[in-house]
Amino acid sequence: MTGPDRLAQLEDRLRRLEDRAAVYDVIAAYGPLVDAGDASGTAGLWTEDGSYDVDTGRYDGHDGIAAMVGSRGHQGLLARGCAHLTGLPRITVDGDTAVAIAHSQLVLRREDGRGYDVLRATAHRWELVRTSSGWRVSRRTSRLLDGRPEARELLRLPVAPPEEAFP
Amino acid sequence: MTGPDRLAQLEDRLRRLEDRAAVYDVIAAYGPLVDAGDASGTAGLWTEDGSYDVDTGRYDGHDGIAAMVGSRGHQGLLARGCAHLTGLPRITVDGDTAVAIAHSQLVLRREDGRGYDVLRATAHRWELVRTSSGWRVSRRTSRLLDGRPEARELLRLPVAPPEEAFP
Amino acid sequence: MTGPDRLAQLEDRLRRLEDRAAVYDVIAAYGPLVDAGDASGTAGLWTEDGSYDVDTGRYDGHDGIAAMVGSRGHQGLLARGCAHLTGLPRITVDGDTAVAIAHSQLVLRREDGRGYDVLRATAHRWELVRTSSGWRVSRRTSRLLDGRPEARELLRLPVAPPEEAFP
Repeated sequence: MTGPDRLAQLEDRLRRLEDRAAVYDVIAAYGPLVDAGDASGTAGLWTEDGSYDVDTGRYDGHDGIAAMVGSRGHQGLLARGCAHLTGLPRITVDGDTAVAIAHSQLVLRREDGRGYDVLRATAHRWELVRTSSGWRVSRRTSRLLDGRPEARELLRLPVAPPEEAFP
Repeated sequence: MTGPDRLAQLEDRLRRLEDRAAVYDVIAAYGPLVDAGDASGTAGLWTEDGSYDVDTGRYDGHDGIAAMVGSRGHQGLLARGCAHLTGLPRITVDGDTAVAIAHSQLVLRREDGRGYDVLRATAHRWELVRTSSGWRVSRRTSRLLDGRPEARELLRLPVAPPEEAFP
Repeated sequence: MTGPDRLAQLEDRLRRLEDRAAVYDVIAAYGPLVDAGDASGTAGLWTEDGSYDVDTGRYDGHDGIAAMVGSRGHQGLLARGCAHLTGLPRITVDGDTAVAIAHSQLVLRREDGRGYDVLRATAHRWELVRTSSGWRVSRRTSRLLDGRPEARELLRLPVAPPEEAFP
């Protein structure tokens, strides 16, 4: 392969790693933003018409997602003390879209102040798109891991197997 | 340094980052696969003769690991609702092998349905190898963090210090 | 753009990704090191004059941080069985400094041995610097997510938004 071709290939491979890093950052930003109560910051992780479909409700677009963060329910969690901790996501980037599978936990401070209860353990499927201002979430689907098949089916949805991710 | 040498060096550095990304993906895939009850998918993260040595038992090869996922004990966890959440791993790639240290938690839905109990908090040492079809786990050693020295010794095993990881 | 310029740009982009990887490794090393009770290893993640400012105290320099790990309180946690699990961090590298925001949980084995209690859920702001021997922590600020404004303000502190991270 000649120099120019090798350069172009390097640039492609580098772009792919940068895309992964950007997707990690979007996913990593969610917990801190909702735990800070930052409604517009949280909504801004999604595309304008992005959606968040969770077992407890469905939130559409920036207004819908911001309203969730501003809701009485969410504000009650913040006042008590809560943390949305995100586990290591499995990511596949394919051109201008990406899919990530990740678990999270929501822990809530106990009323007696002695530590935290694990309120939720959730399976998430993040679908992301490259936009002119960076990677954004087009859809996040989240289901409580409560023994019902929904969460397990979510986790089974196809993501490229490890061997295809870096050919 | 001349152009061709710089290119070759860039390719090496890029390969190393791609290896890290692939190792992250293997580790990240474990929790979703076991929580989905995907026995063959879980086993496929290991090499054919890979092993999983955990304080509660030892599982060898694809058959052994798949049998663990299909076991009555594991299926009982799934039916109740469980999540294996993996924390941020520390990874060292050295040529065709890699070592990662990571914590995980296993949370189990409470019988009364009010949240989850943290059943296990575990230290893991992942040993991985590059195969013709991607990175695979050759051995995973896991010990409950229960105050006994085993888990702490596992965490103390040598991994390249940060300063050597990117010289 | 000519070959040499493209090469130089590639090297810059690659360096940035390597920096991210190194920062991930420093953050990921913390939990395993403190849970192993490795006082000097933990302290070595910081710069010589680095500081760790947590809601329960402030620890300065290698001696201060090592003393925290060796303290009766910390050793008591280790003897009971504890895990410091770090969630996915959000990282911004800017030249020779980096900032990361991450949650962690501290779980402690219950006295009756039946699982773990979530003792702490904490928001962290890591500030790191490039040194001649790799990336080190110059300051870590940590606040319990207990409903007080401190932790939420910590999470709100400016980090480059995702769109600026990879221009």
